[in-house]
Amino acid sequence: MQHFLSVRDLSANTIETILKQAEVIGDTREQNKGYFAANLFFEPSTRTKMSFVVAERKLGLDTLDFHTEKSSMTKGESLYDTVRTFEAIGADLLVIRHANDNWCNELDGNISVPIINAGAGKGEHPTQCMLDLYTIKQEFGAFKGLNVAIAGDIKHSRVARSHVSALKTMGANVYFVDVPGFRDENLDIPYITMDEACVMCDVLMLLRIQHERHGDVAYNTSSYLEKYGLTIERERKMQNHAIIMHPAPVNRNVEIDTRLVECSRSRIFKQMENGVAVRMGIMDYLLAERSVIV
Amino acid sequence: MQHFLSVRDLSANTIETILKQAEVIGDTREQNKGYFAANLFFEPSTRTKMSFVVAERKLGLDTLDFHTEKSSMTKGESLYDTVRTFEAIGADLLVIRHANDNWCNELDGNISVPIINAGAGKGEHPTQCMLDLYTIKQEFGAFKGLNVAIAGDIKHSRVARSHVSALKTMGANVYFVDVPGFRDENLDIPYITMDEACVMCDVLMLLRIQHERHGDVAYNTSSYLEKYGLTIERERKMQNHAIIMHPAPVNRNVEIDTRLVECSRSRIFKQMENGVAVRMGIMDYLLAERSVIV
Amino acid sequence: MQHFLSVRDLSANTIETILKQAEVIGDTREQNKGYFAANLFFEPSTRTKMSFVVAERKLGLDTLDFHTEKSSMTKGESLYDTVRTFEAIGADLLVIRHANDNWCNELDGNISVPIINAGAGKGEHPTQCMLDLYTIKQEFGAFKGLNVAIAGDIKHSRVARSHVSALKTMGANVYFVDVPGFRDENLDIPYITMDEACVMCDVLMLLRIQHERHGDVAYNTSSYLEKYGLTIERERKMQNHAIIMHPAPVNRNVEIDTRLVECSRSRIFKQMENGVAVRMGIMDYLLAERSVIV
Repeated sequence: MQHFLSVRDLSANTIETILKQAEVIGDTREQNKGYFAANLFFEPSTRTKMSFVVAERKLGLDTLDFHTEKSSMTKGESLYDTVRTFEAIGADLLVIRHANDNWCNELDGNISVPIINAGAGKGEHPTQCMLDLYTIKQEFGAFKGLNVAIAGDIKHSRVARSHVSALKTMGANVYFVDVPGFRDENLDIPYITMDEACVMCDVLMLLRIQHERHGDVAYNTSSYLEKYGLTIERERKMQNHAIIMHPAPVNRNVEIDTRLVECSRSRIFKQMENGVAVRMGIMDYLLAERSVIV
Repeated sequence: MQHFLSVRDLSANTIETILKQAEVIGDTREQNKGYFAANLFFEPSTRTKMSFVVAERKLGLDTLDFHTEKSSMTKGESLYDTVRTFEAIGADLLVIRHANDNWCNELDGNISVPIINAGAGKGEHPTQCMLDLYTIKQEFGAFKGLNVAIAGDIKHSRVARSHVSALKTMGANVYFVDVPGFRDENLDIPYITMDEACVMCDVLMLLRIQHERHGDVAYNTSSYLEKYGLTIERERKMQNHAIIMHPAPVNRNVEIDTRLVECSRSRIFKQMENGVAVRMGIMDYLLAERSVIV
Repeated sequence: MQHFLSVRDLSANTIETILKQAEVIGDTREQNKGYFAANLFFEPSTRTKMSFVVAERKLGLDTLDFHTEKSSMTKGESLYDTVRTFEAIGADLLVIRHANDNWCNELDGNISVPIINAGAGKGEHPTQCMLDLYTIKQEFGAFKGLNVAIAGDIKHSRVARSHVSALKTMGANVYFVDVPGFRDENLDIPYITMDEACVMCDVLMLLRIQHERHGDVAYNTSSYLEKYGLTIERERKMQNHAIIMHPAPVNRNVEIDTRLVECSRSRIFKQMENGVAVRMGIMDYLLAERSVIV
């Protein structure tokens, strides 16, 4: 594996290897001294970007911070030329987020420096998926037979798209919560109601409403919490061992009652914490692969 | 002291301890290796932000640079959630500037990682206050009985608000220069004219006109220098040992004649230089406190 | 030499010294530990800025990243005051790009910290010039008698202005390709056609059309490639040993057929790679000079 662009191609074995590596990775600063990671974020991000920066620094990588609005892309430069520029300048690893669903296809095969997909439009978000798997494994030890319900704006969610693939690979049962207008009929997943999901799931994975991908029509969230969100009432129906996840940022009192964001079964901030370890694991995996090739 | 949010709560003893620490602090790089400081500036800044970055690096801290316009706050995330995110990702120290006068109250008590207030709307700017105290002490050795005149846009100045409290704690006499429209009647400080201030003060502290906090009505500065600013004529009336201070950026030929910005009694660039040492002292103080707690 | 602001003042000897230094410079990290370089880019940049950052880190310098849109320049602070601020805060080296053609004159003589010109409006871009010289030398070993044709938007190009001076100093023959509207009659250089240039040159240096400096009238590029650009047909007429250069970003299919950007005689990405070494050489030169003075 040269790049880390999608979870679709990952075997259960590769996933387990990376999760294991995330768990045990220690201080590799000395090993990576003098190497550069470049973070190219063409869409807003706090936790993903900062999480990558912390992970890179902990691996001993030097970081290059790219500001799209101050870059030559304002002069019309393409993503390919920008990426080739970073390669020429000496980046050893590229982390890219871009609004285009298919930017990875444009680069794959043409770039020799390892690339990590940090978000591709409505397409995939494989490192978020891996950190969620890590969080689930931390909780349950394994994936086989786990009931995972994914609730919310599935249609516009790159997280959901990555999860469906990876969770199936790992043997979990995936369900979607039916929210009118947010279904994605291209994905072969059974739809259930939010009430059903709360009762039967081991993992309740809430998704953020992706307002910025809805085009001109503003989605009205006024009755969302009551109809499809996690209210206190619904939370009480969850099994004792069941956990709540959300990739954040959270729309408080829309996807979830604000009082539940940091409740005892919420793993929302734990997910962020785990993001650093998992991204260290992924980068370490790619850098190790690369050394073998070289 | 867990956070550094206000000078109001600082005793003379704590202030002296921090100023002393700023004076003697040497190379602590090794000691803080692997620790992260995150700089969250939601308002423009050059000197405060860069001064913190230099101070952090000199302490051996790794820095996380947060770009508000490229962050999830554009997706509606609150300050609290953003701060909790940085905590989860592994920041060991947070430096925050925000336009809200009371953002500190929102966070205090809910966040365990140490927070430094780098500016709160028209509220407080305690690190600027500390570096000004440091500059004054460097010059005069002590504060008791010193006449400090603060001139300019007091009404919209967080610097003035911090200074009144700290200078009184240290035993200085504080005067405000009376500029129509810029008085703050909530502060119990005597008003004098600019001419009186120049004659009697040991320290003349000029404030920047805070155009960005004046709302819709643009303040006309055309006769400001002549009426309330530091002209060459007024500077000649100052005592031999008296010094000029300004937190900068300076509006040249408004608050001060441009020819005086770098005159022999000006400490304007010295203040910036001192900012690095003082911020090192403050951060070192908080990190030491934290180790004790942990 | 205290600053690096222009190639006009450089002797052939100094140029050779810097190029040599760029070639041999190794790991000087230990030597520059604890020093700060500040990058002040007031115009968009990808490769120049990132190239400087990589060069600085390889020299062991700590970097300060200045974001103009989040800075006090939004409060009206001048370039001089901003630069003095960085000096006061402890920057040991300043790298500046600004849209003003003559910003260097404003600072030269008033600032003691070394300044490198990373682009001055339509004026000069001396580090780009040096890395191009380095690329040419790498190819041909020497400059004397080489035919260098510079094609494109000469009128608005700071690169062309720097090159005319430096290439003449080094003994090369410089020609401009005649593009209506893009001539600069102030420069005493013979004009030839693009077809003539392709046949006789050793180095074909293409320039980017500087749309952002054309004012209100948008330049129509629809027939540019055919009339003045490097088509596949024209490339076939070039001598076997001749090389293609372009400072990038490239307007593909305008200045050059997109299929030629990475052809065997193109040095476009090689130029970027060389940029890091050359900037290390220049910074090392300035820092060494400074130590001598101190």
